Amino acid sequence: MKHDLVIEPIKHRNFYEFLNLIDKLAEYEKLTPPDEKAKMRLKKDGLSKKPKYQAYIGKIDDKYVGYIFFFMAYSSFIAKPILYLEDIFVLNEYRKIGVGQKLFNFIVSKAKERDCCRIEWHVLDWNQLGIKFYEKNNAKCLSNWLLYRITSDHFDDFL
Amino acid sequence: MKHDLVIEPIKHRNFYEFLNLIDKLAEYEKLTPPDEKAKMRLKKDGLSKKPKYQAYIGKIDDKYVGYIFFFMAYSSFIAKPILYLEDIFVLNEYRKIGVGQKLFNFIVSKAKERDCCRIEWHVLDWNQLGIKFYEKNNAKCLSNWLLYRITSDHFDDFL
Repeated sequence: MKHDLVIEPIKHRNFYEFLNLIDKLAEYEKLTPPDEKAKMRLKKDGLSKKPKYQAYIGKIDDKYVGYIFFFMAYSSFIAKPILYLEDIFVLNEYRKIGVGQKLFNFIVSKAKERDCCRIEWHVLDWNQLGIKFYEKNNAKCLSNWLLYRITSDHFDDFL
Repeated sequence: MKHDLVIEPIKHRNFYEFLNLIDKLAEYEKLTPPDEKAKMRLKKDGLSKKPKYQAYIGKIDDKYVGYIFFFMAYSSFIAKPILYLEDIFVLNEYRKIGVGQKLFNFIVSKAKERDCCRIEWHVLDWNQLGIKFYEKNNAKCLSNWLLYRITSDHFDDFL
């Protein structure tokens, strides 16, 4: 039984550990982690009756070692939901023992359960560990689609 | 009043025209349009009490000339919704008269209303008209993020 991965949904009792794992991913991705206000919103938005996202954490021997964070997108041409994987993360010291793969398989089972047409996600182009993992799982890179963004500080330019 | 754009939500009475516009976008993007079953799902998923996506169509003088199709994504680091713009489309013969810009401004107003941290979308790399439009609107291209996908025909490989 040792080193078995248990995957559980986020709850009040594991939320602190969940937030810690998000901080660790932000650190790994060299991005800004959620501040205190953002962490309060994450709790409200994730544990409400109508959650704005879904997340699960993976635990080995009472230690929280990784998480997945996703929500439902939608394809207008296929007319089915898309499971969009916002984050998948495993603590450095727990890599290479199959945790990421188990979390990924769990995601696939969720996508199948909800009759999704596909799973989609983004990876930073320098994240070779991540890319290697996705390629190993036969994921397809759609290099002909460019990602664009307008952040909220520019919204008033349009109104 | 002539040539004024009226933007209205999808409803039973305009759904047929909405589906026609989706077909036209698929044609423009050289992608597979929704088949009859998919069109039925689009109706069920868009007009139900808990819609899986949201869409609006633009009308000029009783002619439906364009549409927008979006849903709410979520940022785990900012902890706010993201308005994800799945489609924005204007019929070829109604371009260059500001319809796309009005639809885009409408999207921005929706994103602001819902306290989104940003608007995101993808564009095909050969779609120079689209890219030009987004660049004119000061959108930022995130070329360091790669889009990956696993389609449902591969789900069983994982389970």
